Amino acid sequence: MRTGQTHLFIPGPTNVPEKVRQAMNVPMQDMRAHDFGALTLPIFADLKRVFDTTTGTVFMFPGSGTGCWESAITNTLSPGDRVLMARHGQFSHLWVEMAERLGLAVDVIDVDWGHGAPADLFAEKLKADPAIRAVFVTHNETATGVTSDVAAVRGALDAANHDALLFVDGVSSVGCIPFRFDAWGVDLCVTGSQKGLMMPAGLGILCVSEKALEARKTARLPRAYFHWDDMLKTNATGHFTYTPPTQLFHGLRAALDLIFAEGLEAVFARHRRLATGVRRGVHAWGMTLCARDESLWSDTVSAIVVPEGVDANQVIRIGYDRYRTSFGSGLARLSGRVFRIGHLGDLNEVMCLAALASAEMALADAGARIELGSGVAAAQAWYRDATAAHALRLAAE
Amino acid sequence: MRTGQTHLFIPGPTNVPEKVRQAMNVPMQDMRAHDFGALTLPIFADLKRVFDTTTGTVFMFPGSGTGCWESAITNTLSPGDRVLMARHGQFSHLWVEMAERLGLAVDVIDVDWGHGAPADLFAEKLKADPAIRAVFVTHNETATGVTSDVAAVRGALDAANHDALLFVDGVSSVGCIPFRFDAWGVDLCVTGSQKGLMMPAGLGILCVSEKALEARKTARLPRAYFHWDDMLKTNATGHFTYTPPTQLFHGLRAALDLIFAEGLEAVFARHRRLATGVRRGVHAWGMTLCARDESLWSDTVSAIVVPEGVDANQVIRIGYDRYRTSFGSGLARLSGRVFRIGHLGDLNEVMCLAALASAEMALADAGARIELGSGVAAAQAWYRDATAAHALRLAAE
Amino acid sequence: MRTGQTHLFIPGPTNVPEKVRQAMNVPMQDMRAHDFGALTLPIFADLKRVFDTTTGTVFMFPGSGTGCWESAITNTLSPGDRVLMARHGQFSHLWVEMAERLGLAVDVIDVDWGHGAPADLFAEKLKADPAIRAVFVTHNETATGVTSDVAAVRGALDAANHDALLFVDGVSSVGCIPFRFDAWGVDLCVTGSQKGLMMPAGLGILCVSEKALEARKTARLPRAYFHWDDMLKTNATGHFTYTPPTQLFHGLRAALDLIFAEGLEAVFARHRRLATGVRRGVHAWGMTLCARDESLWSDTVSAIVVPEGVDANQVIRIGYDRYRTSFGSGLARLSGRVFRIGHLGDLNEVMCLAALASAEMALADAGARIELGSGVAAAQAWYRDATAAHALRLAAE
Amino acid sequence: MRTGQTHLFIPGPTNVPEKVRQAMNVPMQDMRAHDFGALTLPIFADLKRVFDTTTGTVFMFPGSGTGCWESAITNTLSPGDRVLMARHGQFSHLWVEMAERLGLAVDVIDVDWGHGAPADLFAEKLKADPAIRAVFVTHNETATGVTSDVAAVRGALDAANHDALLFVDGVSSVGCIPFRFDAWGVDLCVTGSQKGLMMPAGLGILCVSEKALEARKTARLPRAYFHWDDMLKTNATGHFTYTPPTQLFHGLRAALDLIFAEGLEAVFARHRRLATGVRRGVHAWGMTLCARDESLWSDTVSAIVVPEGVDANQVIRIGYDRYRTSFGSGLARLSGRVFRIGHLGDLNEVMCLAALASAEMALADAGARIELGSGVAAAQAWYRDATAAHALRLAAE
Repeated sequence: MRTGQTHLFIPGPTNVPEKVRQAMNVPMQDMRAHDFGALTLPIFADLKRVFDTTTGTVFMFPGSGTGCWESAITNTLSPGDRVLMARHGQFSHLWVEMAERLGLAVDVIDVDWGHGAPADLFAEKLKADPAIRAVFVTHNETATGVTSDVAAVRGALDAANHDALLFVDGVSSVGCIPFRFDAWGVDLCVTGSQKGLMMPAGLGILCVSEKALEARKTARLPRAYFHWDDMLKTNATGHFTYTPPTQLFHGLRAALDLIFAEGLEAVFARHRRLATGVRRGVHAWGMTLCARDESLWSDTVSAIVVPEGVDANQVIRIGYDRYRTSFGSGLARLSGRVFRIGHLGDLNEVMCLAALASAEMALADAGARIELGSGVAAAQAWYRDATAAHALRLAAE
Repeated sequence: MRTGQTHLFIPGPTNVPEKVRQAMNVPMQDMRAHDFGALTLPIFADLKRVFDTTTGTVFMFPGSGTGCWESAITNTLSPGDRVLMARHGQFSHLWVEMAERLGLAVDVIDVDWGHGAPADLFAEKLKADPAIRAVFVTHNETATGVTSDVAAVRGALDAANHDALLFVDGVSSVGCIPFRFDAWGVDLCVTGSQKGLMMPAGLGILCVSEKALEARKTARLPRAYFHWDDMLKTNATGHFTYTPPTQLFHGLRAALDLIFAEGLEAVFARHRRLATGVRRGVHAWGMTLCARDESLWSDTVSAIVVPEGVDANQVIRIGYDRYRTSFGSGLARLSGRVFRIGHLGDLNEVMCLAALASAEMALADAGARIELGSGVAAAQAWYRDATAAHALRLAAE
Repeated sequence: MRTGQTHLFIPGPTNVPEKVRQAMNVPMQDMRAHDFGALTLPIFADLKRVFDTTTGTVFMFPGSGTGCWESAITNTLSPGDRVLMARHGQFSHLWVEMAERLGLAVDVIDVDWGHGAPADLFAEKLKADPAIRAVFVTHNETATGVTSDVAAVRGALDAANHDALLFVDGVSSVGCIPFRFDAWGVDLCVTGSQKGLMMPAGLGILCVSEKALEARKTARLPRAYFHWDDMLKTNATGHFTYTPPTQLFHGLRAALDLIFAEGLEAVFARHRRLATGVRRGVHAWGMTLCARDESLWSDTVSAIVVPEGVDANQVIRIGYDRYRTSFGSGLARLSGRVFRIGHLGDLNEVMCLAALASAEMALADAGARIELGSGVAAAQAWYRDATAAHALRLAAE
Repeated sequence: MRTGQTHLFIPGPTNVPEKVRQAMNVPMQDMRAHDFGALTLPIFADLKRVFDTTTGTVFMFPGSGTGCWESAITNTLSPGDRVLMARHGQFSHLWVEMAERLGLAVDVIDVDWGHGAPADLFAEKLKADPAIRAVFVTHNETATGVTSDVAAVRGALDAANHDALLFVDGVSSVGCIPFRFDAWGVDLCVTGSQKGLMMPAGLGILCVSEKALEARKTARLPRAYFHWDDMLKTNATGHFTYTPPTQLFHGLRAALDLIFAEGLEAVFARHRRLATGVRRGVHAWGMTLCARDESLWSDTVSAIVVPEGVDANQVIRIGYDRYRTSFGSGLARLSGRVFRIGHLGDLNEVMCLAALASAEMALADAGARIELGSGVAAAQAWYRDATAAHALRLAAE
């Protein structure tokens, strides 16, 4: 018998705010009604604000971020096209795999898991090879808790005066940490509903530059479900090619309202504030993050390396079975070595303390030498200061 | 200001039962938890019961039925493969279009819209051409309200001793009218969550025979998001390749519980009972169905031909704007000539009477000569008899 | 197995709008929080708008309208006080019974059920007896579908220059038909959450004049739970004496928003429009209303007299068992002779047609000679005209 | 902008489980339908199991526990009746006040707040005064976190061979800690929906012995809304005198299902387990409980005395404003001196740790010298042990 709230700290799906849950609880409606666009068109417009673009075009596909990876590729590239990718975690790995499956010639740079996308190596490759059609960056590698520098990759492209398309996986970054579609010259950015947008899974979201949109005209990869042409036509009036999950649009409407009421920059600041507390807790335990240095720390997910002799999978299992807490697991080569705390979406300080308190018990139960309460105390100290400072800042505004 | 319940009579998404709405209102959960299969594995098993198969394999993709059309094709066929299809409505038309887009050589038989899949012509083609790799049938053409005879197509294949795969679009039939995956020797059947399964849109569902499953090993069409191999591996324990919409699984659980509590055959009988009332109403108006003869009448949707001089789109617009009622529109060449009443999913007699009452007003407002109340009266007479008979039958059991 | 929506046409609880259902689905919260008044104080203010008063004081008690009957009495009167009441239906009957139970000396005027409060007889009594402390009026007798003329009773009091308190039961009238607390000089008006306010049952709502408020200081009936003094003190900051049902406040907030978005006068007009259709249907059947003449017809509920030889309880039972439709029953002496259609709250034209269609089948099944569709047709004709006129009016604004 | 879950640790309303929230989200229904008892009669029966009685009669009133205090009194006693009560906290105080208001002659024993009902003093009074008609005990004084020994009071009655009725306020105890209606010879026990029953406020629940039921026949206090006679008559078939909040019955059904699935004794054990952790945390801070000794500690709420110089109201205010946490306040004379942590209803270990972590920050912010993390660590140590022991016990079963 499991009582009380579950404590969900996986890096997605994230906790859905009550307002969003309320909003999704709607009867079905006619998605071909003449006024359906009154619901959907403002959502498209507001998603552009979230991507920080005025020139991009947004698509919403019933599906997931993975589907939008495919949509981004098949609508802009052709069989055998040369693309440049880095592999430094499970999600960048999977994107490489997909690109190969779809028939691209992938030039993969393998990087230690725990590092980010290597803008410098990219720069070299780009200078050397004008035939590269696209560069792929995983903005926030959810498996390792590493945030890469997308602007630096744009810099590498510009330095090489290269016109390759810039693909970005923003699944666990968009809506959580600064993302600048226009400023960074991104061409395709993929995200999903179930992370920073605080929604259930079910919508893959894609933002596309004018250049990428143009590329569809010559792209020869086969595509149907994720075809842009059909969507462009129907989206113009706020309609869809096939039956969309209308309940998710109502939820997304509510989620976007929450985001803009708080303010996008305030959302980013909050993610940093909460993440810092979690990291202070981890360091107070004497443990380290998978992300190699501070500049790479992700504000949306922390991958924590467990001490020698401790099985991270056991930590996760104990957290789930005994303490109703869900942590993210170490994926692929990190299995057993790290567990992850997702700190993105609709969270607050006390929820993060609960995550740390639960993790401490699970770690101790799994055999780690850890002082109970130590991580909590370090995070509390930070949150007290940060909350006071935050309150002052709000008062001053 | 629009008050009261909306009256939803489009052929999908259909009305979601309260129990299903309740069940979907859940917090997010860890889709990688070790016990996640306790939720999902019984759903896979129960969907097999809905498809009436013991040998098939079921897939659930975040997406829509359209996505499953693609999944069915890309996992079993190769570029240039010859396939046989009939086009007799907008949805069979779209499937043809997709097959062509994906690089198949489609042998299309055009049939008058209002007729079904031509098993006899299929038989001829199959006898003449052993190279055909697959035959596609739209079991219930939602655009015209026509139900085709899948068993007859199976008969054509068998008569020709042909080993082509049998693809079936069951989007608006599965869970509403008899569908026999095993008995009819279907190889791939596509459906979606938002029709007979009484759910919101968001899940594409696919049932695959052992033969079709085997075909994936030689199929050379590129595929990634809809790839079966990944799903097979993760589904074995009830998990998924990428983040699935867990809330929909909870809803589907509740929907399947409702279906089996009523009994699948009872669900089919109810659809027939309700559809018959709607058709009696239509005929009492002196109007006809798009479906050419009684053997083709669909028990899930009626496409109603409006009288000369009346614009069906205006009927629909008036229904929506003045009477809070959503009817389906005439698609493509049927635009303006028919409007559709969806009578599938979670409905009852009085709801169907409301549809007829509303349609009568909208028709009259749009200029049709129609005796108000006439269709309602014809349906009432039928429903009174059928309800009494139904009650007797239940009492006798 | 009962499928599809239930059709609820009892005169309360009424159908709860989706927005209100969404709003009530909240986690619990601290009803003693310092900012709780931000939720509740505007509700008090908006309820005053619904009662059409600027001078009244509103109370909300966890309970029902019946509880507020008691609160109105015990806070203003003393044992043995003489009060004047009319009995012309089950609800006025029950109020008489309560007043007697609580120790008042009730001067009851019995009136034929189907008539309203007899302002003329009241006038005589009042002239004759200056000791009468209060006059009670059931504004809308829910049992008979009769609306009484409160202003006329106020006239009787004024004509007699009498200072008795004017009590009004507005349970099934407030928020549906014009109610003018200030203009009619009402002293105590009782209502509940589950009628015109489109909420579940659970809140009794009371509006009190300054004079009635003053009366509490000398009133000697014992009271505790429904005591105003405690509530006045805590309500001042938006708090409550004991734990209130906070979820209902969220629902009420949403309901009031809907009411004011539509406009109170528009809400009244809609009730009249819908009620007229139902009455036309009843008359087309050749049946009559319990309310004796047109001036008494209630726009919130119609009590329909069934033909000789038909058992109204059987009509109701059949409606419920066979057609998922709930009608109100004939209460007390009307049992078996009338059934009631509630047409208040969140309804629309097609819902009313569904009620009539269902009633026709139930009546026929119960042995009434009735032409199926006849009532529907009469109502359709009215609704078509009224909807067109309504649309024109809106367009002109 | 307040993000994430609120942390609700007031001693009611308590956190509502998701299953209960789902269950309450229903459309309205006919509370006079012939089958309504299929919903309500099993609830009455199951509530008897919660009270641990086979002989008692249960009432559910739309209202609150306060209303049931009144119902208990007015249905069994007469003006001027002598009753014996102890006052040792705000809720026992309020019950005294109500009894006086309703016209009883109350013999009040004032006890230090922090102590329980004085069975020994009761015994003396009872021996001395055979005219006492009733003894009132507050089983769990929510204001001070003190659990009184009801069995001992029964012992005092028996020792004096006294036939006074035994009234018990079980609002914050029933369904949380052992309560034995029959074994303790309780005559009237009052509770509410919003505590151990894990529901929103809105239902007052009363359990009545045969003796108390009999007493209504001679009781002369005026009563109407809370009158048992009407309820008895209608409840017999599962119906109600006036419109009940049907949505709450659906919630209560789900809540009772959860309670019995866990097992009542297991629920009690869980409350003890969770409460012990909270108390260990408090003691690790070096603070004390309001409850004077261990035998009085309540397993449902802890009233914590703040250090000299700290304002408990500030602690609460800070918890609410900065950390989204709601604690209970010190009531009346305890205002500013204690804050309360409610640990009843649907909770788990990590939620209690969150409460402690949040309290530590709020205490520190309010000027208390407290080692951050110290209370959390003490509770974690206990919860680890208790959880392991609990798991072993379950495994052994």
